[in-house]
Amino acid sequence: MMSSNAWQQQLQQHQARSTAQIHGWLDRQVFCDNPLIQAMRYGATLGGKRVRPFLVYEVGALFNAPVDALDTPATAIEMIHAYSLIHDDLPAMDDDALRRGQPTCHIQFDEAHAILAGDALQTLAFEVMATGPLSQQGEANRVAMLATLAQASGANGMCIGQALDLQAEGQHADLAQLETIHRHKTGALIMAAVRMGALAGGCNNATVLQQLDIFARNIGLAFQVQDDILDLISDTQTLGKPQGSDVAHNKSTYPALLGLEGAQQKARDCYQNAISALASLPYQTDTLEKFAQYIIERNH
Amino acid sequence: MMSSNAWQQQLQQHQARSTAQIHGWLDRQVFCDNPLIQAMRYGATLGGKRVRPFLVYEVGALFNAPVDALDTPATAIEMIHAYSLIHDDLPAMDDDALRRGQPTCHIQFDEAHAILAGDALQTLAFEVMATGPLSQQGEANRVAMLATLAQASGANGMCIGQALDLQAEGQHADLAQLETIHRHKTGALIMAAVRMGALAGGCNNATVLQQLDIFARNIGLAFQVQDDILDLISDTQTLGKPQGSDVAHNKSTYPALLGLEGAQQKARDCYQNAISALASLPYQTDTLEKFAQYIIERNH
Repeated sequence: MMSSNAWQQQLQQHQARSTAQIHGWLDRQVFCDNPLIQAMRYGATLGGKRVRPFLVYEVGALFNAPVDALDTPATAIEMIHAYSLIHDDLPAMDDDALRRGQPTCHIQFDEAHAILAGDALQTLAFEVMATGPLSQQGEANRVAMLATLAQASGANGMCIGQALDLQAEGQHADLAQLETIHRHKTGALIMAAVRMGALAGGCNNATVLQQLDIFARNIGLAFQVQDDILDLISDTQTLGKPQGSDVAHNKSTYPALLGLEGAQQKARDCYQNAISALASLPYQTDTLEKFAQYIIERNH
Repeated sequence: MMSSNAWQQQLQQHQARSTAQIHGWLDRQVFCDNPLIQAMRYGATLGGKRVRPFLVYEVGALFNAPVDALDTPATAIEMIHAYSLIHDDLPAMDDDALRRGQPTCHIQFDEAHAILAGDALQTLAFEVMATGPLSQQGEANRVAMLATLAQASGANGMCIGQALDLQAEGQHADLAQLETIHRHKTGALIMAAVRMGALAGGCNNATVLQQLDIFARNIGLAFQVQDDILDLISDTQTLGKPQGSDVAHNKSTYPALLGLEGAQQKARDCYQNAISALASLPYQTDTLEKFAQYIIERNH
């Protein structure tokens, strides 16, 4: 088992690399000084855990893909995530003024630029995935990665998740509905990150991809359960966003449905499922195990 | 030269085909009854001239591509156009309540669903382009079509065009600025439609693609000049959107900068350039010529 310290360093290296990649793509835009690009940069590079790039890099590494052959899917998927946060924070959506301890994009700029910055970040994600460098094995899977990214983020993935979440406000969603919301809203993109890491590494083995799917589904769910727990028990300064916003938005949460203890048990169950899936694979999965542990133990 | 009547029939056939294709993709969504999908359908299928699918179908036909091998790029590009209209109409953007004679998407549904419907239509465009059927020649150009679509619609294409347009309100943009706005806001996607039709037909001849680019650039500009003219001289009922909205938004227009006569001359000059580019090609371009004529003679 790798040390906690070594793992933290790896996470930070991926974070720094992911941020540098996003800056690089934005620097190469013709209108790079325009407020549109500034708003894209603001929304995409101000903090963030970089969970999705981390997964692309680490899953790709299982298949010995060199790190610079993984930048393309890692950057594309983080841009999709960043655009979704910009749009989710808009007044007509979750109406949040604070994100990662900073003013949200529409507060820092204005609503029009926040809408356009989200739109253009989504487009740039697909441009990155269609034109960015890949290894030879990854090139053979470029269209598969584009399809994975689109399917995970659209009307049968992240977008419908956000719609279901909005529609469920004040509706006292039960556990099955809550899981459907999160499987789409956050789960689909986390599964896509894992899948794209494998594809970029040239993996086309159905059994391996299936076990990775199980790993991804469980850490995705654990991530959301822990988010709900933190919204209840953490504080605004640690979170970087308003504590208690789920209650304020009258949203169903795992602690509300299962109790705090029950939610914590659920997170641990997901963790165990994720670890079992990794254990079935003939790869060096220490870093991914550490990551699964981090998911349920993090405090922000 | 084909008759005006035959040409009109061809336009209507392409319109009907394009609309059916969009419905087909939306029908296949898992959550097809959800208000999100309803809002996507509303925004993407309610009227519209289908200029971009028409160009994909007709340019592809120059290279003898069968029509069902052109549905994929034609549908993808119309979804991008549709998403941009939904977002452009939002209160924080152009704040329009009427589009194609009907309530705009955020009036018919709500702002949250209009934002999400635009987001998900953009995603679906890339899913269609990544997974939809193509001919064998088109398949070899699939990634090139994905790249073309992304580059034309993002921060160096349509999105920056809309940003520049918003930023120019009340700024008395001069002719060069106005042309920069429109070259990005509408021109880039029209050029992409022509380029994608050629790529789907297996065309990789640089000289031919260059002449098609000249054709596309000129009809794109002519289209915008005519839009500005119609906003000045037509009426709300014929337009299906409020007449005089350019003046109301304090926007620079071609008639404002060149006078009505000057703007009409500019549209005719663009038409002539477009026709000359077509004439240089060894293909049957009657329908595209008719289309260029329609662009500058249409009354809505």
